[in-house]
Amino acid sequence: MPDMRPPRPGERSIDLPEEFDASIYFIGRIHTPWQTTGACPKNSAARREVLATVDLAPRFAEGLEGIELMSHLILLYWLDRSARNLIVQAPSHAPKPRGVFALRSPVRPNPIGLSVVELVSVAGTSLTIRNIDCVDGTPLIDIKPYFASTDSVPDARRP
Amino acid sequence: MPDMRPPRPGERSIDLPEEFDASIYFIGRIHTPWQTTGACPKNSAARREVLATVDLAPRFAEGLEGIELMSHLILLYWLDRSARNLIVQAPSHAPKPRGVFALRSPVRPNPIGLSVVELVSVAGTSLTIRNIDCVDGTPLIDIKPYFASTDSVPDARRP
Repeated sequence: MPDMRPPRPGERSIDLPEEFDASIYFIGRIHTPWQTTGACPKNSAARREVLATVDLAPRFAEGLEGIELMSHLILLYWLDRSARNLIVQAPSHAPKPRGVFALRSPVRPNPIGLSVVELVSVAGTSLTIRNIDCVDGTPLIDIKPYFASTDSVPDARRP
Repeated sequence: MPDMRPPRPGERSIDLPEEFDASIYFIGRIHTPWQTTGACPKNSAARREVLATVDLAPRFAEGLEGIELMSHLILLYWLDRSARNLIVQAPSHAPKPRGVFALRSPVRPNPIGLSVVELVSVAGTSLTIRNIDCVDGTPLIDIKPYFASTDSVPDARRP
């Protein structure tokens, strides 16, 4: 169920399409020390201190072959407690309301979370990782190797 | 329909789950000069030379407010021509077969593509971007701002 909260001043919602266009599998779960969205760390120092675990469903085990060669991964996960219709949002850190596609908010039309994580170790279908901030039990939808050649833009600008 | 090809030596497939767990909306389309997967560029120099267009569905227009402040974006898109069950794959560039989660192959249990792109300009619901290699008409599923602080790992290692 979505964690609904009252809209903040300046926030706007839309009607979502009546039908979905494609469907996904949950391929595992991410385990962290944080049981609620409110408990999740808000700064990157706190994220980096804590180890988390990715438990892949056994059916997909062979998909990990060779993953130990990577130092970093991109995880995609399903933020299943998020509303999907809040198109303009007013996060407390932003000076004014901003469109969802200019935010990394978990509330978005397709509530897919993305984190670049460090791969610490692999044991069977369990990966120990560092640098994620999602709630314990978050459904995993993809693991991709991180390629600095295409994924790293150190001088990217943001407000 | 999936672009099926005969399996290569060493490739393995699995039975996928019988039911899906969640569903997504296509929120727009990505337009590129490449009409087939075979025509898409294989190297990053070719990708960087070509401008592409993201056309967001009008319903989601307000979600772009503030996006012009970002120099780079992460696009997620649906690789709807891909099979989903090939768990170990033998790409021509790899020395031996490798698990799907150690590859950026479009063929994966949840065929979500990810590219870090440069935002060149915004006009209404149309974004001009640089540095993508997908087929013309690929369904868009998310746009996220790129944050160098969490997304850029210049020294990430891979084989």
